[in-house]
Amino acid sequence: MKAVVYNDGLKLENNYPMPTPKKGEALIKVTTIGICNTDYEITKGYMGYKGILGHEFTGIVEKAENKDLIGKRVVGEINCGCQECEWCKQGLERHCFNRSTLGIWQREGCFAEYVALPEKNLLVIPDNVTDNEAVFVEPLAAALEILEQIHIPPYKKVVVLGDGKLGIITALALNACNLDVTLVGKHEEKLALASSQGVKTELLSNFKIEKAYDYVVEATGSITGFETSLALTKPRGTLILKSTIAASKEFNLAPIVIDEITLLGSRCGQFAPAMRMLENKRIDVNPLISDIYPIDKSIEAFERNKEKSSVKVLVKID
Amino acid sequence: MKAVVYNDGLKLENNYPMPTPKKGEALIKVTTIGICNTDYEITKGYMGYKGILGHEFTGIVEKAENKDLIGKRVVGEINCGCQECEWCKQGLERHCFNRSTLGIWQREGCFAEYVALPEKNLLVIPDNVTDNEAVFVEPLAAALEILEQIHIPPYKKVVVLGDGKLGIITALALNACNLDVTLVGKHEEKLALASSQGVKTELLSNFKIEKAYDYVVEATGSITGFETSLALTKPRGTLILKSTIAASKEFNLAPIVIDEITLLGSRCGQFAPAMRMLENKRIDVNPLISDIYPIDKSIEAFERNKEKSSVKVLVKID
Repeated sequence: MKAVVYNDGLKLENNYPMPTPKKGEALIKVTTIGICNTDYEITKGYMGYKGILGHEFTGIVEKAENKDLIGKRVVGEINCGCQECEWCKQGLERHCFNRSTLGIWQREGCFAEYVALPEKNLLVIPDNVTDNEAVFVEPLAAALEILEQIHIPPYKKVVVLGDGKLGIITALALNACNLDVTLVGKHEEKLALASSQGVKTELLSNFKIEKAYDYVVEATGSITGFETSLALTKPRGTLILKSTIAASKEFNLAPIVIDEITLLGSRCGQFAPAMRMLENKRIDVNPLISDIYPIDKSIEAFERNKEKSSVKVLVKID
Repeated sequence: MKAVVYNDGLKLENNYPMPTPKKGEALIKVTTIGICNTDYEITKGYMGYKGILGHEFTGIVEKAENKDLIGKRVVGEINCGCQECEWCKQGLERHCFNRSTLGIWQREGCFAEYVALPEKNLLVIPDNVTDNEAVFVEPLAAALEILEQIHIPPYKKVVVLGDGKLGIITALALNACNLDVTLVGKHEEKLALASSQGVKTELLSNFKIEKAYDYVVEATGSITGFETSLALTKPRGTLILKSTIAASKEFNLAPIVIDEITLLGSRCGQFAPAMRMLENKRIDVNPLISDIYPIDKSIEAFERNKEKSSVKVLVKID
C-alpha cells in the first residue's frame, strides 16, 4: 500500500506492507488524513519515532470483530492502552505507561491507505458530518481537553496565543462553550478565520502585554510564545501549555513561584465531545482547510504545511 | 540602630537610621530574626534588593495608632499592598502590583533593632507560643499556602522533596493537616527532625524515582531537585514549586504537556492558620533551631546558614 514513512528522511512508499490487525483491532481504509504540526516535529526528531506518520484520519471500516462497524465511516482515538492499569480502567489510555500512540509512539500511523486500530477506539461519524470536518475531531478533542482538566468560569477572560491551526481550533472550541475568548496572533487572515465565527481577535502588535488574564492558552509552540503567555497571565492565573514545545531554552522558574502561576500541560482529549460539537454545528471547521492534496502528492502537502500561509492541509485517498 | 544591610556586600551597620513609621504603620522593637534562604539568594542578586535584609521576626510594638497593640508581642505579614486594587481588596496584598515586601522588595527588612510595618499586617503572638516558635510563622504560613491554593484529598500521596528548613516545615505542616506525606532528602539527621513528629521519611538514595505521586512539593531550590520532582509526578499530577529557583537552565516543557502535569507556583501565605498550628501544638518547631546568635554576630549567623549542617538559624536581640 501507499504510506508516508519517516525514517531518517520523509518518503512516500508505494509498496509498504499492509497493517495486520491484532485481536480487538479493526482494519480501516483511510479516506482523509490531516497534517498536524506534531508530524512535522517528528520529522525533526521529536519522540524518536520511525514509521508511518499521521494520527488524524477518517476512514471506512473494512474488517472488524464487531460486524456493525463494517462499512461505517469512522475516526479513531490515537492512544492505545494496556487495558489493565489504573489509567486504562479510568478511560485514560492516553496516560497508560505501556501505551502506543498512532503515528507518534510504538504504532504505525494513519498516513497510508490502511490503518489498524482497536475497535474500542473508533467513533462512527454522524451522517451530517463530512469527512473533511470529521478529520478535525482529533485536534478539536485536544482543544476541548482543557475543559476535561479544569473548570473555566464563564465570567473569566481567556486569551489564546497563536493563530496557527491549533490556536484557531482551540479558540473556536472554547468560544463555542460560551467562554470569553480572545485569540491573539500575528496574521490578520488567520485571525479572520476565528473572528468570522464570533471569536474576539487581536493582532499581537496591537495587544497590550500585561498580567491581566486568568487563563492563557499557549498555542504558538515557541519559547517566545511561552514567554509572552507568561507575561499575560495574572498572578494566581493558569497558563495552559497546549503545544509540545520541543525546543529547550534557558528558563527561570522564579516568576511562576512569585506570581503563583498554575502551568497546566494539556494533550489529547476524548473524541465524543468534539464530534458532538461538529454534529451540532457549533463551529465550522471547513474555512480552516487551506489545501487538499492527493496521497501521491503527500510530500508536497508536508512542504505546504510548513508555510506560514497554510492552515489545515488535508490529504485525500480515493 | 544595628542593622544587617546588603549593599554590594553584606554588613552589620551599627548606626543605621531608625525606621520612620508611615501613616497606619507601627514601630516594632525586634526580638528574634529568622534567616531564610531567600535572604541568602538576595546576597547573590535575587530581586536586585538593596537595604536591610530579613522578613522573619518577632518583636514588641513600641508605637502604634491602635493603642491596644503597644507592648504586645507580634509577628508581621511581609507584603504591604496599596489597599486599593483588586488584590488588596481580596486580602491578597501579596499579589498587589504596587506592593512592597519586607526585606525583599521596596521595603527595609527586619534584620535590625527596629522595623516599621502596617498595623494591619501584625498578628499578636498567643501567650503559649514563644518567640523562638513564633518566628517560624512566616515560613509555616508559606508552607500552608499550598492548602490555600489547592485541595489535596487525604487519600492521595504527597512527596516533599528536599530536607532543608523549607522542606521540613512543609512536610510537618501538611502532615499535621492529616495528609499522607513522605519527606525525601539526603540527610538522615535532618529527616529525623520530621520523622520524630510522625512524618514518613526516605533517603533519596533509597527512594524509587517513578511517576507515582499525585502531589510533589519541590523544596530543594535546585534545578536537579526540580527534575527529580518532575520524575516523581504522576501523569495529571501536581508539582508544587515551593522554592524560588533563581538559577536558569536549559529546560524542555514537552514532558509537562505529554503527562499533563500541573506545575503550581506557591509563595507566601496567611499568618493566622500558621499561628493556629503553633498555638495548638500540632507541630513542634523547636528542634529545627540549629543555632542562635546575638545580633552582633549576624554575619557569622549568615555564614552558618550556608552550611548544610544548619537548619534554622536565629538571631536574638536583647
